[in-house]
Amino acid sequence: MSENTIPYKIYLSENEIPDKWYNLRADMKNKPAPLLNPATCKPMTADELGVVFCDELVAQELDDTTPYIEIPQEIRDFYKMYRPSPLIRAYCLEKALGTPAKIYYKFEGNNTSGSHKLNSAIAQAYYAKKQGLKGVTTETGAGQWGTALSMACAYFGLDCKVFMVKVSYEQKPFRREVMRTYGANVTPSPSTTTAVGRKILEAHPGTTGSLGCAISEAVEVATSNPGYRYVLGSVLNQVLLHQSVIGMESKTALDKYGVKPDVIIGCAGGGSNLGGLIAPFMGEKLRGEKDYQFIAVEPASCPSFTRGRFAYDFCDTGMICPLAKMYTLGSGFIPSANHAGGLRFHGMSSTLSQLYHDGLMEARAVEQTAVFAAAEQFARVEGILPAPESSHAIRVAIDEALRCKETGEEKTILFGLTGTGYFDMTAYEKFNDGVMTDYIPTDEDLEAGFKGLPVVPGQDQ
Amino acid sequence: MSENTIPYKIYLSENEIPDKWYNLRADMKNKPAPLLNPATCKPMTADELGVVFCDELVAQELDDTTPYIEIPQEIRDFYKMYRPSPLIRAYCLEKALGTPAKIYYKFEGNNTSGSHKLNSAIAQAYYAKKQGLKGVTTETGAGQWGTALSMACAYFGLDCKVFMVKVSYEQKPFRREVMRTYGANVTPSPSTTTAVGRKILEAHPGTTGSLGCAISEAVEVATSNPGYRYVLGSVLNQVLLHQSVIGMESKTALDKYGVKPDVIIGCAGGGSNLGGLIAPFMGEKLRGEKDYQFIAVEPASCPSFTRGRFAYDFCDTGMICPLAKMYTLGSGFIPSANHAGGLRFHGMSSTLSQLYHDGLMEARAVEQTAVFAAAEQFARVEGILPAPESSHAIRVAIDEALRCKETGEEKTILFGLTGTGYFDMTAYEKFNDGVMTDYIPTDEDLEAGFKGLPVVPGQDQ
Repeated sequence: MSENTIPYKIYLSENEIPDKWYNLRADMKNKPAPLLNPATCKPMTADELGVVFCDELVAQELDDTTPYIEIPQEIRDFYKMYRPSPLIRAYCLEKALGTPAKIYYKFEGNNTSGSHKLNSAIAQAYYAKKQGLKGVTTETGAGQWGTALSMACAYFGLDCKVFMVKVSYEQKPFRREVMRTYGANVTPSPSTTTAVGRKILEAHPGTTGSLGCAISEAVEVATSNPGYRYVLGSVLNQVLLHQSVIGMESKTALDKYGVKPDVIIGCAGGGSNLGGLIAPFMGEKLRGEKDYQFIAVEPASCPSFTRGRFAYDFCDTGMICPLAKMYTLGSGFIPSANHAGGLRFHGMSSTLSQLYHDGLMEARAVEQTAVFAAAEQFARVEGILPAPESSHAIRVAIDEALRCKETGEEKTILFGLTGTGYFDMTAYEKFNDGVMTDYIPTDEDLEAGFKGLPVVPGQDQ
Repeated sequence: MSENTIPYKIYLSENEIPDKWYNLRADMKNKPAPLLNPATCKPMTADELGVVFCDELVAQELDDTTPYIEIPQEIRDFYKMYRPSPLIRAYCLEKALGTPAKIYYKFEGNNTSGSHKLNSAIAQAYYAKKQGLKGVTTETGAGQWGTALSMACAYFGLDCKVFMVKVSYEQKPFRREVMRTYGANVTPSPSTTTAVGRKILEAHPGTTGSLGCAISEAVEVATSNPGYRYVLGSVLNQVLLHQSVIGMESKTALDKYGVKPDVIIGCAGGGSNLGGLIAPFMGEKLRGEKDYQFIAVEPASCPSFTRGRFAYDFCDTGMICPLAKMYTLGSGFIPSANHAGGLRFHGMSSTLSQLYHDGLMEARAVEQTAVFAAAEQFARVEGILPAPESSHAIRVAIDEALRCKETGEEKTILFGLTGTGYFDMTAYEKFNDGVMTDYIPTDEDLEAGFKGLPVVPGQDQ
């Protein structure tokens, strides 16, 4: 089909929403390492995980052999409310850059939660409802996950208890109000409502909280209240599974016009968006059918891939969650407060960590003023105000397109635009006022984080 | 076609974006009354209007005979970035209400400006660019129009000077930052940068500004700087013309599935959304081809249609703009500060005013706590967080659907969902906290406003 017939937006029809999620692990020769029980250092069993997570989600977490897992009709019905999401040809950006490259992006911000997080939130809420639970608990930092989960719980009539990092609770009152509008119970963390919260408040009376602390509170409430389970918006295999709809729809849309991307770019915090976007393409690469270049983009202030260790570590600062083998900066690592966006997690999805370790994917770290410059440039020509997280991918997509301009290569670039920046205007204001700064941790900063890595028999530290 | 085949979202393809705007006035037997020069009380000439507005927009403003006006290719190219907008079947809302009614809504919030305002902003920016202007000036209150215009000007490389009502500038810093991110120059109004601003500040040192004052400043800057013109986001005939894309796309989508709406509902502030949504349907009614029930929904705190006078009035509080014949509460009328949403304009589009006066359209006034209750109910089941303005239409759509539940009628309802509420969370917070109040002006309040109506020879006052 002729190049000229590619529309600005490639919309698929509702019956082109995937009816199965693609489980990338099934095609991996080197499987991601299993979660370990921190007390025994043995792989977590389904029963152990079932205390914290919903049963069906535990099964998905542990299944690394089934390539396709059916999406229940109830979830597909919800997906129809905002999916298929548009795949957009960035004609205006290409023109502004004067590049011969062809740029496409998959836009996941076209739903009220404003990000791709909803793809997994609705799945997790569905399985909780199906199990007959009363509700779920979670933590949220910037608030995208909490918002998505609140929407999903409102839809299924589940109670939703969100522990929101106190500094975000106070600085992002609008995010909090969106969650409340969807009926969620939002508590600033650390709080006096949990034992772990009270303990932390006693030790650090003035603390403004952290994601790790909020996780600990959410897990405590889930495990101490009958009818509740804990849910998580990234990192886990189950989350990457649900997010595979991003990549599958992208592939369907591109295939329709005979377009094969050369480079696929996504931002990476815990890895849910990147893992979902690349899934079917990486599957082809793993099966030796086609080749692609994959680039994970992370903030230079929280460089898990580019400067982290590949080791077993805790997922939370409170060290109560299972150990995951991943690229990590140590569970005690906290990025500088001047870092505006999300992508602040110290670790990285085990699946993506394994792929990176096996040389199947590249990673780049970018600084935030360069990220916001890309965000602004993109917004002005493409008309979408991107989230800071998503803008990491935009930065590298623009860099790649400018490189094509120099070399004359007509590469096809696909990147994930995970969400919108409506609730990040404080950061944009700093950039607009010219007072945004960059931060790169020193080697000493990183060494301090690595010192907290747990000792796991048989693992190099 | 079977009822069951109607998808959640009816997306059209890019080549189904209208290539012409529909000029409803051409089919009106009683044309809207012309704008008058306030000094002479004679109809404004094109030359007089050309001092303030772009030439081509003046021509559109005065043309009440040409039924279809071609949309320039450059504007259609921009439309492709976010149009056609989805027409959504509210299956989840219908189910939640248990109504036999079929509810559809046209969602115009799926672009960064977050509202339908972009449809006219891009057209006005295009004509300004085509005329070789340096830039445009405007005012903004809640900020939707200013945001849309900033995006449009960024796209065409025009300077954009926005006078933002000071109280909004301070209370809605995020809106301000979106405009700045798109490169606009945003000044809190009243300001010391204009003669009229200085005069107002001298008379009222502590004033937090008003839309009328911001209009006056914007017009002053446009008329005193070579290469600048003033643009307006609602009320004018040209704006309704551009917004006809909303209705035309809605009609194309519904026709595709053989659906004819019985009731068409839109919120009304200045009338740009409502006028655009109903345009092609009203055209059929005017030509005697089909019948529809049209309902304009306005806030009870600013009831132009339901309690206003049909008379010539100023469009601005500063009384420097032309006189328009419309349903008005008087240019000095200011809705109570407790009213959260937009729709605060004292007057109403002349075109819609004439249609209402001729009995072709109904109007309802609704109170804001009832509006936010509808907004929240809608958000929880349909997954879109609506703007307070749009939620006026949701309120009446729900009321109509509940009436159908009582009577058993299977009416088909279409309403306009003009935008998203991301920047209105302060109002949602008040509602969530149960401290939102209603306000209905007394007859005495209204009489005070009517006293300020200008005396126009030959007009009843």
